[in-house]
Amino acid sequence: MSADRTTTLYLALVHYPVVNKNRQVIGSAVTNLDIHDIARVGRTYGVAKYFIVSPYQDQHTLVTELLDHWLQGHGARYNPARKSALERVQLEWDIEAVITRLQQETGKTPMVVVTSAHSQDNTIAFSSLRQKLDQSEPVLLLFGTAHGLAPEIMQKADYSLPPILGGTGYNHLSVRSAAAIILDRLLGS
Amino acid sequence: MSADRTTTLYLALVHYPVVNKNRQVIGSAVTNLDIHDIARVGRTYGVAKYFIVSPYQDQHTLVTELLDHWLQGHGARYNPARKSALERVQLEWDIEAVITRLQQETGKTPMVVVTSAHSQDNTIAFSSLRQKLDQSEPVLLLFGTAHGLAPEIMQKADYSLPPILGGTGYNHLSVRSAAAIILDRLLGS
Repeated sequence: MSADRTTTLYLALVHYPVVNKNRQVIGSAVTNLDIHDIARVGRTYGVAKYFIVSPYQDQHTLVTELLDHWLQGHGARYNPARKSALERVQLEWDIEAVITRLQQETGKTPMVVVTSAHSQDNTIAFSSLRQKLDQSEPVLLLFGTAHGLAPEIMQKADYSLPPILGGTGYNHLSVRSAAAIILDRLLGS
Repeated sequence: MSADRTTTLYLALVHYPVVNKNRQVIGSAVTNLDIHDIARVGRTYGVAKYFIVSPYQDQHTLVTELLDHWLQGHGARYNPARKSALERVQLEWDIEAVITRLQQETGKTPMVVVTSAHSQDNTIAFSSLRQKLDQSEPVLLLFGTAHGLAPEIMQKADYSLPPILGGTGYNHLSVRSAAAIILDRLLGS
């Protein structure tokens, strides 16, 4: 393990299509701390890029302003560590655009793996996915906001990771906490 | 592992004494999402209680209002899962008061373990602490806000957990992310 490795793991935080508490497909608003917390975890474990996926122009404007502050504005001077984490954040309009970009940049189609609080079909064990990353295969891990990724995204994915269970039956983690735990399981020592 | 176990792990999120970026001892303000995210992770893994430690009356008023909303107000009806997580949150004025309360409630003095982004003396391995929890020993895990727990707290603790490293040298996780990863390492399956 090098002193500052970059892995072949890519993250995308999806704001559309996701579901609300009644399982209806909606688009969600971007949450500031989702960007910061997950970028910092990603940077800690050597995630190559962290995509914020939203189809809404106003959300793109908001995220661009936020990133400008931390990458070029006062925030960059005040907190260089935050800058270093947010440098790997990239905005995209939809999941297809993320995949196309990764195909262009890596020359390969990434394996698309979804995360969920509920068991899905086509589960891949954490240890198996870890092995694929050890072999430098590009993997795009999708996280849903609101009450999770829409069924159409689940069905199109290559694999799904098992839900995070803590021995209690309670499965209502924030996406920030779930992302932290999943990255530690996939890339932690 | 029972369907809804409660462990002997207790958490405290400390807002005083902590240090700022210049290593000066300060008191920090409570962050709403620190309460929610860590309460949800705690509930997932069967943490017995999650203490919010602050010496400031205005912060106690704020947290009490927030908890009232989710435990008795509209929030309790709108989101019972959130209520179930926040029921284990308790306000205290300082770390001593937390320890006294645990002595009264459990009849034992908890082992006090600190967390930090930097290596400390008297480190305990995750596996050793996990073993103590398996044996139902009461453990109080302290998390610092701002730039971490003040040195006096570090020195008084029985043990410290190693920092979370992800193979990159970057060690600037949010306390929310660190708490999620640490609980998964201590109590995850």
